[in-house]
Amino acid sequence: MSLKRSVRREFLKRGAALAGGLGLGAAKPAVGQTPAPGAFIKGTDERVAYGERSQYVTSTRIPHGGRPSPDAFGLDFHIAAPLQDSVGVITPSSLHYVGTTRGSFTPNIDPAEHRLMIHGMVERPLIFTVDELKRLPSVTRMHFIECAGNRANRRHTTVQETHGMTSCAEWTGVLLSTLLNEAGVQEGGNWIVAEGVEEVKGASSIPMSKAMDDCLVCYGMNGEAVRPQQGFPLRLLAPGFEGILSVKWLRRIKVVDQFYMTYSDYGHLRQDADDAALSLQIGPKSVITYPSGGQQLAGRGFYEIKGLAWSGGGAVARVEVSTDGGRNWTDAQIRGTAHRMAHTRFTLNWEWDGSESELMSRCTDELGSVQPMRAQITEYWTQRGQPGRVRGQDNSIQPWRVESDGSVHNAIT
Amino acid sequence: MSLKRSVRREFLKRGAALAGGLGLGAAKPAVGQTPAPGAFIKGTDERVAYGERSQYVTSTRIPHGGRPSPDAFGLDFHIAAPLQDSVGVITPSSLHYVGTTRGSFTPNIDPAEHRLMIHGMVERPLIFTVDELKRLPSVTRMHFIECAGNRANRRHTTVQETHGMTSCAEWTGVLLSTLLNEAGVQEGGNWIVAEGVEEVKGASSIPMSKAMDDCLVCYGMNGEAVRPQQGFPLRLLAPGFEGILSVKWLRRIKVVDQFYMTYSDYGHLRQDADDAALSLQIGPKSVITYPSGGQQLAGRGFYEIKGLAWSGGGAVARVEVSTDGGRNWTDAQIRGTAHRMAHTRFTLNWEWDGSESELMSRCTDELGSVQPMRAQITEYWTQRGQPGRVRGQDNSIQPWRVESDGSVHNAIT
Repeated sequence: MSLKRSVRREFLKRGAALAGGLGLGAAKPAVGQTPAPGAFIKGTDERVAYGERSQYVTSTRIPHGGRPSPDAFGLDFHIAAPLQDSVGVITPSSLHYVGTTRGSFTPNIDPAEHRLMIHGMVERPLIFTVDELKRLPSVTRMHFIECAGNRANRRHTTVQETHGMTSCAEWTGVLLSTLLNEAGVQEGGNWIVAEGVEEVKGASSIPMSKAMDDCLVCYGMNGEAVRPQQGFPLRLLAPGFEGILSVKWLRRIKVVDQFYMTYSDYGHLRQDADDAALSLQIGPKSVITYPSGGQQLAGRGFYEIKGLAWSGGGAVARVEVSTDGGRNWTDAQIRGTAHRMAHTRFTLNWEWDGSESELMSRCTDELGSVQPMRAQITEYWTQRGQPGRVRGQDNSIQPWRVESDGSVHNAIT
Repeated sequence: MSLKRSVRREFLKRGAALAGGLGLGAAKPAVGQTPAPGAFIKGTDERVAYGERSQYVTSTRIPHGGRPSPDAFGLDFHIAAPLQDSVGVITPSSLHYVGTTRGSFTPNIDPAEHRLMIHGMVERPLIFTVDELKRLPSVTRMHFIECAGNRANRRHTTVQETHGMTSCAEWTGVLLSTLLNEAGVQEGGNWIVAEGVEEVKGASSIPMSKAMDDCLVCYGMNGEAVRPQQGFPLRLLAPGFEGILSVKWLRRIKVVDQFYMTYSDYGHLRQDADDAALSLQIGPKSVITYPSGGQQLAGRGFYEIKGLAWSGGGAVARVEVSTDGGRNWTDAQIRGTAHRMAHTRFTLNWEWDGSESELMSRCTDELGSVQPMRAQITEYWTQRGQPGRVRGQDNSIQPWRVESDGSVHNAIT
């Protein structure tokens, strides 16, 4: 393949940068020696049962935007994923972002006692136990969830702060359409209200067209049960729509005739069509995770630029990368399968010459929608008499500035 | 889609079995009530940083085959994944099977001190730090790893005992070919010996054709760093080949001229071509995970049969399921994308009439190779004068017997 050849040529060209530093004599060879007996993790019954990560891996979630957003109990209820350390497209369940409508007290639900009720404008109201749901036809799909509040500003320093309120997992469950068809939606049942087990019930209103299209009632996530912070034992998933619609600790779906304003719908009662069109569905979006703000390049030479792209409109079709602040763009490589409404890993080989550079990525989805520059969004709202207003999803292009000393900074102005 | 319609018809047909039991009045409705304040998991800084699973989810790994195989330190070094609880295709990293050549003392490696050396019959011997590897072009791929010892026998009671020594993860790393091309393989360098950090060095010999095809040097697994039990910070992955060749705690790759017998190659010095052909690459394989041995059906009615299929020969092309001990076969549905050398989830809608049934699944891979019946394998070896001998991979079809009381049992005779 041509990649392999070009990579080899690039490495060989690099001279002192990387290849030179990798010469046999240049590094401390820890290889070839048997480690001392103390250098082992002792096996325990617990570690056999359910393994842990290395003590040297300290990547953690942080409060959204780097600033605590305490609830009435003084606890954070918006927690961002460490995208700067991400590899591949899966977010580990332990590091998946968390947003709750209010309160970070996670419901501690015994699944044997939990029920899901389907009622309202249906022919046959139904109640399912979790075990009964697991008997029904299932699907497994990769999907991202993103909080509508996942917006970058110039005060943010890292990609965890600018973009950490999105994550991606392998979700397993039953299509909501399977349950609604079984219940039998009555004529005029045009919306659903989905309610979870939260102090404020965490309800959301979703159009029936979306509910019957691709919404899932999930019991599985990344190969095991949905985690408590993600809605154990049941989470509604509304793929590609803003995260608040993916109701956690799901206990009730009521078929109704119209949009109902619930606690979690505070952002969804639209005054105008522009707002509505920009609100529910996440636009085409991407961000470079390496190199990103707060990281430090070791010196000039070869680097693989890595990032994540996603869209609520379907699969990512194309990602372009610029290393000169948007003057020139190069097609990045999509790594692995670009699943619909899922994080997609992109990469670009880059030879850094040591000069100041501005890195950007731009996503185009399968509908042909293209991620906008921040200036375009500003112009859009300025033309509508609301300069500087952030509304709907902010899916604008994120710039990172690489200084000549190798430090990387948020370049939003 | 026709599935939805047929599913609905099936549910409605079920009468007392499932649909009846789901009627609104029949269940204890825990829905609609706000839980007591004590029913919450209190948020802690630690849980914010790195989340945990529910206290009600107790699925764990067990010693392989259900019987401890203690090493010199009295610890188990073959640990099986709980496939009976699996959803989707990813195995959570905490539940990924573990096999080590000897000793369950997991190396506790500081990645900053770790090196990977490429040497032997190469033009330019190289040493890489982990950070240097992360600068190189990466790939992300779903791949299973399976231990050659993943064999079922009639004493096993659950799918964890019969098949738990296989797992699947999203792996991220550098193609080994990228590193070997950079080092420059000399004429006659036909094999590699890959060595890890273990008491016995955990070395394995791999043909150069495989090394240059699709082997990976992985630093990422399921979206985070490779776990210590899986080889942190670096694991060699030889997709589709038996697990012992996917060397953990990788520190050295030596290009050599021929097969070298190392500690981990004890099973690979072949006396004959039959053995060799059946040894390195995992054949087409599948197993039903639900219903499976030790599980209990709640009564007659609708069930979705769920299982996993995989092959070392490439992607799973087809899975058939029999509910009558192999007399009749029906095509199962493949759920999600059938990746090459990866677990693939299959399902089949099943209306259980309450009579004794024998469930089987049969995998065909993209090469057209078909998973054999146990009787075929027995006949193969009997014809070669070795009746009853288990050699190479055992990829035979696993039968589960559902008794009329709903209990499920291993049906190997």
